[in-house]
Amino acid sequence: MEKRISREDLQRMDRWTRAALVNSVPGFKSVVLVGTANAAGVNNLAVFNSVVHVGSNPPLIGLMFRPRTADVGHTYHNAKSTGYYTINLLQFGFLDAAHQASSKYPEHVSEFEACGLQALFSPGFAAPYVAESPVRIGLRWQEEHPIAANGTSFVVGAVEEIFLPEECLGPDGFVNLVDAGVLAGSGGDGYGPAGPFLRLPYIGSEPAKSGSLA
Amino acid sequence: MEKRISREDLQRMDRWTRAALVNSVPGFKSVVLVGTANAAGVNNLAVFNSVVHVGSNPPLIGLMFRPRTADVGHTYHNAKSTGYYTINLLQFGFLDAAHQASSKYPEHVSEFEACGLQALFSPGFAAPYVAESPVRIGLRWQEEHPIAANGTSFVVGAVEEIFLPEECLGPDGFVNLVDAGVLAGSGGDGYGPAGPFLRLPYIGSEPAKSGSLA
Repeated sequence: MEKRISREDLQRMDRWTRAALVNSVPGFKSVVLVGTANAAGVNNLAVFNSVVHVGSNPPLIGLMFRPRTADVGHTYHNAKSTGYYTINLLQFGFLDAAHQASSKYPEHVSEFEACGLQALFSPGFAAPYVAESPVRIGLRWQEEHPIAANGTSFVVGAVEEIFLPEECLGPDGFVNLVDAGVLAGSGGDGYGPAGPFLRLPYIGSEPAKSGSLA
Repeated sequence: MEKRISREDLQRMDRWTRAALVNSVPGFKSVVLVGTANAAGVNNLAVFNSVVHVGSNPPLIGLMFRPRTADVGHTYHNAKSTGYYTINLLQFGFLDAAHQASSKYPEHVSEFEACGLQALFSPGFAAPYVAESPVRIGLRWQEEHPIAANGTSFVVGAVEEIFLPEECLGPDGFVNLVDAGVLAGSGGDGYGPAGPFLRLPYIGSEPAKSGSLA
Protein backbone atom coordinates (compact mmCIF):
# COMPACT_ATOMS: atom_id res chain seq x y z
CA MET A 1 0.00 0.00 0.00
CA GLU A 2 1.16 3.50 -0.77
CA LYS A 3 1.18 6.00 2.06
CA ARG A 4 0.98 9.80 1.75
CA ILE A 5 2.58 11.85 4.49
CA SER A 6 1.66 15.52 4.41
CA ARG A 7 3.50 18.49 5.85
CA GLU A 8 0.90 18.52 8.64
CA ASP A 9 1.51 14.81 9.36
CA LEU A 10 5.22 15.59 9.68
CA GLN A 11 4.55 18.48 12.05
CA ARG A 12 2.48 16.21 14.30
CA MET A 13 5.27 13.63 14.67
CA ASP A 14 7.65 13.69 17.61
CA ARG A 15 10.99 15.20 16.61
CA TRP A 16 12.90 11.90 16.59
CA THR A 17 10.45 10.16 14.25
CA ARG A 18 10.30 13.18 11.94
CA ALA A 19 14.10 13.42 11.90
CA ALA A 20 14.50 9.72 11.04
CA LEU A 21 11.91 9.97 8.26
CA VAL A 22 13.09 13.20 6.64
CA ASN A 23 16.74 12.17 6.90
CA SER A 24 16.24 8.73 5.34
CA VAL A 25 13.57 9.26 2.67
CA PRO A 26 15.52 11.33 0.08
CA GLY A 27 17.92 8.51 -0.86
CA PHE A 28 21.24 6.94 -0.01
CA LYS A 29 24.11 9.28 0.77
CA SER A 30 27.77 9.74 1.44
CA VAL A 31 28.92 9.35 5.02
CA VAL A 32 32.28 10.75 6.12
CA LEU A 33 34.40 11.81 9.05
CA VAL A 34 35.23 15.50 8.96
CA GLY A 35 38.61 16.32 10.49
CA THR A 36 39.63 19.73 11.82
CA ALA A 37 42.07 21.27 14.29
CA ASN A 38 41.57 24.27 16.54
CA ALA A 39 44.03 27.10 17.14
CA ALA A 40 45.54 25.18 20.06
CA GLY A 41 46.23 22.19 17.82
CA VAL A 42 43.52 19.96 19.31
CA ASN A 43 42.14 17.70 16.59
CA ASN A 44 38.40 17.25 16.12
CA LEU A 45 36.34 14.60 14.32
CA ALA A 46 32.63 14.45 13.49
CA VAL A 47 30.44 12.22 11.32
CA PHE A 48 28.70 14.08 8.48
CA ASN A 49 26.26 12.72 5.93
CA SER A 50 25.61 15.91 3.98
CA VAL A 51 28.31 15.84 1.31
CA VAL A 52 27.21 17.22 -2.04
CA HIS A 53 28.96 17.76 -5.39
CA VAL A 54 29.00 21.47 -6.22
CA GLY A 55 31.20 21.49 -9.31
CA SER A 56 34.35 20.13 -10.88
CA ASN A 57 35.78 23.24 -12.60
CA PRO A 58 36.93 24.49 -10.15
CA PRO A 59 36.60 21.36 -7.96
CA LEU A 60 34.11 22.18 -5.19
CA ILE A 61 32.37 20.10 -2.52
CA GLY A 62 29.51 21.29 -0.30
CA LEU A 63 28.70 20.33 3.29
CA MET A 64 25.86 21.29 5.63
CA PHE A 65 27.00 22.49 9.06
CA ARG A 66 24.97 22.96 12.20
CA PRO A 67 26.92 25.78 13.88
CA ARG A 68 24.94 25.64 17.11
CA THR A 69 25.22 21.90 17.76
CA ALA A 70 27.90 21.23 20.39
CA ASP A 71 29.75 18.36 18.68
CA VAL A 72 29.42 19.57 15.11
CA GLY A 73 29.97 23.13 16.33
CA HIS A 74 33.64 22.43 17.05
CA THR A 75 34.06 21.26 13.48
CA TYR A 76 32.34 24.37 12.11
CA HIS A 77 34.37 26.80 14.19
CA ASN A 78 37.67 25.01 13.52
CA ALA A 79 37.04 24.80 9.77
CA LYS A 80 35.98 28.43 9.58
CA SER A 81 38.82 29.81 11.70
CA THR A 82 41.66 27.76 10.20
CA GLY A 83 40.13 27.63 6.71
CA TYR A 84 40.87 23.92 6.33
CA TYR A 85 38.98 20.68 6.88
CA THR A 86 39.15 17.12 5.60
CA ILE A 87 36.54 14.55 4.60
CA ASN A 88 37.42 10.91 5.12
CA LEU A 89 35.26 8.11 3.74
CA LEU A 90 34.32 5.23 6.05
CA GLN A 91 34.94 1.48 5.97
CA PHE A 92 33.39 -1.21 8.16
CA GLY A 93 36.83 -1.88 9.68
CA PHE A 94 36.78 1.36 11.67
CA LEU A 95 33.03 2.10 11.72
CA ASP A 96 32.63 1.55 15.47
CA ALA A 97 35.53 3.92 16.12
CA ALA A 98 34.15 6.48 13.67
CA HIS A 99 30.75 6.33 15.29
CA GLN A 100 32.35 7.31 18.61
CA ALA A 101 32.95 10.72 17.03
CA SER A 102 29.19 11.30 17.48
CA SER A 103 29.80 11.50 21.22
CA LYS A 104 30.05 14.95 22.72
CA TYR A 105 33.59 15.47 23.94
CA PRO A 106 34.89 18.65 25.59
CA GLU A 107 36.83 20.94 23.25
CA HIS A 108 40.23 20.10 24.73
CA VAL A 109 39.84 16.38 24.00
CA SER A 110 41.26 15.07 20.73
CA GLU A 111 38.50 12.98 19.23
CA PHE A 112 41.06 10.95 17.34
CA GLU A 113 42.44 9.70 20.65
CA ALA A 114 38.99 9.33 22.19
CA CYS A 115 37.83 7.23 19.20
CA GLY A 116 41.05 5.27 18.74
CA LEU A 117 41.71 6.66 15.26
CA GLN A 118 45.03 7.93 13.96
CA ALA A 119 45.52 11.51 12.78
CA LEU A 120 47.55 11.92 9.62
CA PHE A 121 48.96 15.21 8.36
CA SER A 122 49.85 16.35 4.89
CA PRO A 123 52.59 18.98 4.39
CA GLY A 124 51.14 22.49 4.32
CA PHE A 125 47.62 21.37 5.15
CA ALA A 126 46.24 22.60 8.48
CA ALA A 127 43.63 19.90 9.16
CA PRO A 128 44.12 16.26 10.16
CA TYR A 129 43.14 13.29 8.00
CA VAL A 130 41.98 9.94 9.32
CA ALA A 131 44.81 7.49 8.61
CA GLU A 132 42.44 4.52 8.56
CA SER A 133 40.37 6.00 5.69
CA PRO A 134 41.30 4.88 2.16
CA VAL A 135 39.74 7.92 0.42
CA ARG A 136 40.50 11.36 1.88
CA ILE A 137 39.88 14.85 0.56
CA GLY A 138 41.43 18.08 1.83
CA LEU A 139 39.16 21.11 1.52
CA ARG A 140 39.73 24.85 1.88
CA TRP A 141 36.82 26.95 3.19
CA GLN A 142 35.54 28.87 0.17
CA GLU A 143 32.12 30.36 0.84
CA GLU A 144 29.38 30.07 3.46
CA HIS A 145 25.64 30.41 2.95
CA PRO A 146 23.59 30.68 6.14
CA ILE A 147 20.24 28.94 5.69
CA ALA A 148 17.53 31.31 6.90
CA ALA A 149 14.96 28.54 7.33
CA ASN A 150 16.76 26.67 10.12
CA GLY A 151 20.02 28.34 11.13
CA THR A 152 22.30 25.78 9.49
CA SER A 153 25.04 26.74 7.04
CA PHE A 154 25.87 25.46 3.61
CA VAL A 155 29.63 25.65 3.17
CA VAL A 156 31.41 25.22 -0.15
CA GLY A 157 34.98 23.96 0.03
CA ALA A 158 37.64 24.02 -2.67
CA VAL A 159 39.36 20.66 -3.23
CA GLU A 160 43.05 21.09 -2.35
CA GLU A 161 44.17 17.45 -2.53
CA ILE A 162 42.79 13.92 -2.81
CA PHE A 163 44.26 10.67 -1.51
CA LEU A 164 42.94 7.37 -2.85
CA PRO A 165 44.07 3.84 -3.73
CA GLU A 166 45.68 4.12 -7.15
CA GLU A 167 43.96 0.95 -8.38
CA CYS A 168 40.52 2.53 -7.74
CA LEU A 169 41.11 5.39 -10.17
CA GLY A 170 39.91 4.52 -13.66
CA PRO A 171 41.48 5.86 -16.88
CA ASP A 172 38.45 8.13 -17.39
CA GLY A 173 38.71 9.62 -13.88
CA PHE A 174 35.89 7.59 -12.30
CA VAL A 175 36.75 6.44 -8.78
CA ASN A 176 35.58 2.92 -8.00
CA LEU A 177 34.45 3.34 -4.40
CA VAL A 178 33.15 -0.24 -4.33
CA ASP A 179 36.70 -1.54 -4.75
CA ALA A 180 37.82 0.98 -2.12
CA GLY A 181 35.43 -0.72 0.29
CA VAL A 182 33.80 2.48 1.49
CA LEU A 183 30.34 2.73 3.00
CA ALA A 184 27.13 4.42 1.95
CA GLY A 185 24.80 6.06 4.45
CA SER A 186 21.05 5.82 4.92
CA GLY A 187 19.29 8.24 7.19
CA GLY A 188 21.30 9.62 10.06
CA ASP A 189 22.43 6.30 11.52
CA GLY A 190 22.58 3.65 8.77
CA TYR A 191 25.87 2.40 7.27
CA GLY A 192 26.14 -0.18 4.50
CA PRO A 193 27.82 -1.29 1.28
CA ALA A 194 26.76 -0.14 -2.19
CA GLY A 195 27.16 -1.39 -5.72
CA PRO A 196 28.00 -2.77 -8.17
CA PHE A 197 27.26 0.31 -10.27
CA LEU A 198 26.06 0.33 -13.85
CA ARG A 199 27.54 3.30 -15.65
CA LEU A 200 25.31 4.67 -18.37
CA PRO A 201 26.85 6.52 -21.30
CA TYR A 202 26.40 10.28 -21.61
CA ILE A 203 23.65 11.14 -24.02
CA GLY A 204 23.46 14.42 -25.87
CA SER A 205 20.26 14.05 -27.83
CA GLU A 206 20.38 10.36 -28.72
CA PRO A 207 18.75 7.56 -26.69
CA ALA A 208 21.22 5.44 -24.69
CA LYS A 209 20.95 1.69 -24.98
CA SER A 210 23.61 0.04 -22.88
CA GLY A 211 26.05 0.70 -20.07
CA SER A 212 29.18 -0.69 -18.50
CA LEU A 213 29.63 -2.15 -15.06
CA ALA A 214 32.00 -0.37 -12.65
CA MET B 1 49.58 2.05 -3.74
CA GLU B 2 48.17 5.30 -2.49
CA LYS B 3 47.96 8.16 -4.93
CA ARG B 4 47.89 11.87 -4.10
CA ILE B 5 46.13 14.18 -6.54
CA SER B 6 46.80 17.86 -5.94
CA ARG B 7 44.76 20.87 -6.95
CA GLU B 8 47.32 21.46 -9.71
CA ASP B 9 46.98 17.87 -10.94
CA LEU B 10 43.22 18.41 -11.16
CA GLN B 11 43.67 21.63 -13.10
CA ARG B 12 45.88 19.86 -15.64
CA MET B 13 43.29 17.15 -16.36
CA ASP B 14 40.90 17.44 -19.29
CA ARG B 15 37.45 18.57 -18.10
CA TRP B 16 35.79 15.15 -18.54
CA THR B 17 38.36 13.29 -16.47
CA ARG B 18 38.32 15.98 -13.77
CA ALA B 19 34.50 15.94 -13.71
CA ALA B 20 34.37 12.14 -13.37
CA LEU B 21 36.94 12.18 -10.57
CA VAL B 22 35.54 15.06 -8.53
CA ASN B 23 31.97 13.81 -8.95
CA SER B 24 32.74 10.24 -7.88
CA VAL B 25 35.37 10.58 -5.15
CA PRO B 26 33.29 12.12 -2.29
CA GLY B 27 31.09 9.06 -1.77
CA PHE B 28 27.89 7.37 -2.84
CA LYS B 29 24.87 9.59 -3.31
CA SER B 30 21.18 9.88 -3.94
CA VAL B 31 20.04 9.90 -7.55
CA VAL B 32 16.59 11.20 -8.46
CA LEU B 33 14.40 12.50 -11.22
CA VAL B 34 13.29 16.08 -10.61
CA GLY B 35 9.85 16.85 -12.02
CA THR B 36 8.59 20.35 -12.87
CA ALA B 37 6.04 22.02 -15.14
CA ASN B 38 6.32 25.34 -16.95
CA ALA B 39 3.65 28.05 -17.16
CA ALA B 40 2.25 26.45 -20.33
CA GLY B 41 1.82 23.13 -18.52
CA VAL B 42 4.66 21.33 -20.29
CA ASN B 43 6.22 18.81 -17.90
CA ASN B 44 9.96 18.57 -17.50
CA LEU B 45 12.22 15.86 -16.06
CA ALA B 46 15.93 15.86 -15.24
CA VAL B 47 18.28 13.51 -13.39
CA PHE B 48 19.92 15.07 -10.31
CA ASN B 49 22.46 13.55 -7.96
CA SER B 50 22.89 16.47 -5.59
CA VAL B 51 20.21 15.84 -2.96
CA VAL B 52 21.21 16.83 0.57
CA HIS B 53 19.46 16.76 3.94
CA VAL B 54 19.17 20.31 5.28
CA GLY B 55 16.98 19.75 8.32
CA SER B 56 13.94 17.97 9.68
CA ASN B 57 12.30 20.68 11.79
CA PRO B 58 11.06 22.18 9.54
CA PRO B 59 11.59 19.43 6.95
CA LEU B 60 14.01 20.80 4.32
CA ILE B 61 15.88 19.23 1.41
CA GLY B 62 18.63 20.92 -0.62
CA LEU B 63 19.49 20.52 -4.29
CA MET B 64 22.24 21.99 -6.47
CA PHE B 65 21.01 23.59 -9.71
CA ARG B 66 23.00 24.63 -12.74
CA PRO B 67 20.85 27.53 -14.02
CA ARG B 68 22.83 27.97 -17.23
CA THR B 69 22.81 24.36 -18.39
CA ALA B 70 20.20 23.86 -21.10
CA ASP B 71 18.55 20.66 -19.84
CA VAL B 72 18.79 21.37 -16.15
CA GLY B 73 17.98 25.02 -16.85
CA HIS B 74 14.37 24.16 -17.67
CA THR B 75 14.05 22.48 -14.30
CA TYR B 76 15.55 25.48 -12.50
CA HIS B 77 13.34 28.02 -14.23
CA ASN B 78 10.19 25.94 -13.83
CA ALA B 79 10.83 25.26 -10.14
CA LYS B 80 11.64 28.88 -9.45
CA SER B 81 8.70 30.35 -11.37
CA THR B 82 6.02 27.90 -10.18
CA GLY B 83 7.56 27.41 -6.73
CA TYR B 84 7.10 23.63 -6.87
CA TYR B 85 9.20 20.63 -7.85
CA THR B 86 9.29 16.92 -7.09
CA ILE B 87 12.08 14.45 -6.43
CA ASN B 88 11.46 10.86 -7.45
CA LEU B 89 13.81 8.04 -6.47
CA LEU B 90 14.94 5.59 -9.16
CA GLN B 91 14.58 1.84 -9.60
CA PHE B 92 16.30 -0.41 -12.14
CA GLY B 93 12.91 -1.10 -13.75
CA PHE B 94 12.76 2.39 -15.27
CA LEU B 95 16.43 3.39 -15.19
CA ASP B 96 16.85 3.39 -18.98
CA ALA B 97 13.78 5.61 -19.32
CA ALA B 98 14.99 7.90 -16.53
CA HIS B 99 18.40 8.21 -18.14
CA GLN B 100 16.71 9.54 -21.30
CA ALA B 101 15.86 12.64 -19.28
CA SER B 102 19.55 13.54 -19.61
CA SER B 103 18.93 14.22 -23.30
CA LYS B 104 18.44 17.81 -24.32
CA TYR B 105 14.86 18.23 -25.47
CA PRO B 106 13.30 21.50 -26.67
CA GLU B 107 11.24 23.31 -24.05
CA HIS B 108 7.87 22.44 -25.65
CA VAL B 109 8.54 18.68 -25.44
CA SER B 110 7.25 16.84 -22.37
CA GLU B 111 10.18 14.77 -21.16
CA PHE B 112 7.76 12.32 -19.59
CA GLU B 113 6.46 11.44 -23.04
CA ALA B 114 9.91 11.53 -24.61
CA CYS B 115 11.22 9.14 -21.93
CA GLY B 116 8.15 6.90 -21.76
CA LEU B 117 7.42 7.75 -18.12
CA GLN B 118 4.03 8.58 -16.67
CA ALA B 119 3.30 11.92 -15.02
CA LEU B 120 1.27 11.75 -11.82
CA PHE B 121 -0.36 14.74 -10.13
CA SER B 122 -1.30 15.31 -6.52
CA PRO B 123 -4.23 17.64 -5.70
CA GLY B 124 -3.06 21.21 -5.14
CA PHE B 125 0.54 20.47 -6.10
CA ALA B 126 1.83 22.25 -9.22
CA ALA B 127 4.60 19.86 -10.25
CA PRO B 128 4.38 16.36 -11.75
CA TYR B 129 5.55 13.21 -10.01
CA VAL B 130 6.94 10.15 -11.79
CA ALA B 131 4.29 7.44 -11.44
CA GLU B 132 6.89 4.65 -11.77
CA SER B 133 8.85 5.88 -8.72
CA PRO B 134 8.04 4.23 -5.38
CA VAL B 135 9.38 7.10 -3.23
CA ARG B 136 8.36 10.63 -4.19
CA ILE B 137 8.75 13.95 -2.40
CA GLY B 138 6.97 17.21 -3.22
CA LEU B 139 9.01 20.32 -2.49
CA ARG B 140 8.19 24.03 -2.33
CA TRP B 141 10.94 26.48 -3.32
CA GLN B 142 12.08 28.07 -0.06
CA GLU B 143 15.39 29.86 -0.50
CA GLU B 144 18.13 30.13 -3.10
CA HIS B 145 21.83 30.65 -2.54
CA PRO B 146 23.84 31.50 -5.65
CA ILE B 147 27.33 29.97 -5.43
CA ALA B 148 29.86 32.69 -6.29
CA ALA B 149 32.61 30.17 -7.09
CA ASN B 150 30.94 28.60 -10.13
CA GLY B 151 27.56 30.15 -10.91
CA THR B 152 25.47 27.23 -9.65
CA SER B 153 22.68 27.64 -7.10
CA PHE B 154 21.96 25.82 -3.89
CA VAL B 155 18.19 25.71 -3.45
CA VAL B 156 16.46 24.70 -0.22
CA GLY B 157 12.99 23.22 -0.60
CA ALA B 158 10.33 22.72 2.08
CA VAL B 159 8.87 19.20 2.14
CA GLU B 160 5.16 19.47 1.31
CA GLU B 161 4.31 15.78 0.98
CA ILE B 162 5.93 12.37 0.78
CA PHE B 163 4.67 9.22 -0.96
CA LEU B 164 6.23 5.88 -0.08
CA PRO B 165 5.37 2.17 0.28
CA GLU B 166 3.76 1.86 3.71
CA GLU B 167 5.70 -1.31 4.49
CA CYS B 168 9.00 0.58 4.10
CA LEU B 169 8.21 3.03 6.90
CA GLY B 170 9.50 1.77 10.24
CA PRO B 171 7.85 2.55 13.59
CA ASP B 172 10.73 4.93 14.43
CA GLY B 173 10.34 6.86 11.16
CA PHE B 174 13.29 5.27 9.34
CA VAL B 175 12.49 4.57 5.69
CA ASN B 176 13.91 1.28 4.44
CA LEU B 177 14.99 2.26 0.94
CA VAL B 178 16.54 -1.17 0.37
CA ASP B 179 13.09 -2.76 0.59
CA ALA B 180 11.78 0.03 -1.67
CA GLY B 181 14.30 -1.16 -4.29
CA VAL B 182 15.68 2.28 -5.02
CA LEU B 183 19.11 2.98 -6.46
CA ALA B 184 22.18 4.75 -5.17
CA GLY B 185 24.37 6.89 -7.41
CA SER B 186 28.12 6.96 -7.88
CA GLY B 187 29.71 9.80 -9.80
CA GLY B 188 27.58 11.41 -12.45
CA ASP B 189 26.68 8.26 -14.38
CA GLY B 190 26.72 5.26 -12.02
CA TYR B 191 23.57 3.55 -10.72
CA GLY B 192 23.47 0.63 -8.33
CA PRO B 193 21.91 -1.04 -5.30
CA ALA B 194 22.88 -0.31 -1.70
CA GLY B 195 22.59 -2.07 1.61
CA PRO B 196 21.88 -3.82 3.85
CA PHE B 197 22.41 -1.02 6.36
CA LEU B 198 23.62 -1.42 9.91
CA ARG B 199 21.94 1.18 12.10
CA LEU B 200 24.09 2.29 14.99
CA PRO B 201 22.44 3.60 18.15
CA TYR B 202 22.63 7.30 18.99
CA ILE B 203 25.35 8.02 21.52
CA GLY B 204 25.32 11.02 23.80
CA SER B 205 28.56 10.62 25.72
CA GLU B 206 28.72 6.82 26.06
CA PRO B 207 30.50 4.46 23.67
CA ALA B 208 28.18 2.43 21.40
CA LYS B 209 28.75 -1.30 21.16
CA SER B 210 26.21 -2.81 18.79
CA GLY B 211 23.66 -1.92 16.14
CA SER B 212 20.63 -3.32 14.37
CA LEU B 213 20.27 -4.33 10.75
CA ALA B 214 17.77 -2.40 8.59
